[in-house]
Amino acid sequence: MVSPLYGGNIGSVCRAMANMGLSDLGIAAPRRNDMGEARMMACHATDILESRVEYPDLATAVADCGLVMGTTARLGLYRQHVKSARDWAPTALAASENSKVALVFGREDNGLSNQELSLCTQLIRIPTTNEFESINMSQAVLICCYELFVATEQYEPPVEKSEIATSEFRERMFELWKETLFAIGFMKDDKAEHMMLGLRRLLSRGSLSVDDVKIMMGVARQSLWAATRKDVEPED
Amino acid sequence: MVSPLYGGNIGSVCRAMANMGLSDLGIAAPRRNDMGEARMMACHATDILESRVEYPDLATAVADCGLVMGTTARLGLYRQHVKSARDWAPTALAASENSKVALVFGREDNGLSNQELSLCTQLIRIPTTNEFESINMSQAVLICCYELFVATEQYEPPVEKSEIATSEFRERMFELWKETLFAIGFMKDDKAEHMMLGLRRLLSRGSLSVDDVKIMMGVARQSLWAATRKDVEPED
Repeated sequence: MVSPLYGGNIGSVCRAMANMGLSDLGIAAPRRNDMGEARMMACHATDILESRVEYPDLATAVADCGLVMGTTARLGLYRQHVKSARDWAPTALAASENSKVALVFGREDNGLSNQELSLCTQLIRIPTTNEFESINMSQAVLICCYELFVATEQYEPPVEKSEIATSEFRERMFELWKETLFAIGFMKDDKAEHMMLGLRRLLSRGSLSVDDVKIMMGVARQSLWAATRKDVEPED
Repeated sequence: MVSPLYGGNIGSVCRAMANMGLSDLGIAAPRRNDMGEARMMACHATDILESRVEYPDLATAVADCGLVMGTTARLGLYRQHVKSARDWAPTALAASENSKVALVFGREDNGLSNQELSLCTQLIRIPTTNEFESINMSQAVLICCYELFVATEQYEPPVEKSEIATSEFRERMFELWKETLFAIGFMKDDKAEHMMLGLRRLLSRGSLSVDDVKIMMGVARQSLWAATRKDVEPED
């Protein structure tokens, strides 16, 4: 971060970094910030906040970095050659294998100066609507860190515990429903096929898990029992 | 937003929505929030803040919505079937063609209740590291809105003003550099081919614009002049 204005933003940046698995925060040309505010916004990412390193200027901060990726929302001479964070992510990850890579974020009010931009080897622009391009600093950091994290493909979505039901199991469910719908008088012979197609469509929009099918079979079985009972509980 | 705790988050959400082209903010079961803080964080997106609609509860807020997409970081029974914001984005966009689509964000401290989650037709989980999953509310909103915006493919990256140099133009540049490097005594005949390959590699890592080639030709021409001058300015 270059000369951040608000302590709250420094804290929010720490939290965003922690969410996405980054940890090395450098602040170039720091001002006097409200560090109480920073700690509050950092939430449980205060370790990143406390271990931040301060540098007199950006050149010093990025001196040991291979790639220096600067963020900018402005357009102008020599600023056209920019890509989105998603497009640059593979370049950044590849470079990080054998060098340090810096992501550089400018001041909340003025962004990065031309001199600071000239230190950058890549420029990042975050997609926004043309009507409202000014993005909060910690939000910009989050998008960049998020795109890097997603690009690492480390994230594994939570696993569905119940496995997908097989066709055979699903067909048993439909058979049971057919029997039930006849038994409760919901459908007559001439409309049965059409009605069952509707039910199949309804239950086939997403994949059904074994648990889903068990629930639907339970409902059908219970309904069949309730419709035909002679005061005897159904066998399971 | 369901019962947001902090006015600042409401404002940050407004700004994130504006960045990504969204405008309809509803707050279900609102508390007394610091709206001065909200206005400050909304930055220039105060129109979204002022036109927000408040509802007694989530059921009322999403009553007229087709899809109701809830965000959750927790795992548990019936919460396994979640996808990332990126994975759900095409579903949300397609549904928005003929119905309203709600994105639902829970309280900063407790997220969405089981009852609120049961109103959701889809669940969204934002990728984070396993070590630090708690993401700031307005950051979560930003990621979801950003993924929707990117999926619309409305965003057009800024256009490079100078067109890409043609092979013929690049070759004229390399010829001029070869002549110059001989003239200034930088290379000898036996190493020239090897050296020129190095220079080609260096200058071919990214695409060169017409402007880039003009600059490099200008440097070579000036250097050639400086090395061979007899106190006469070179012709352009």
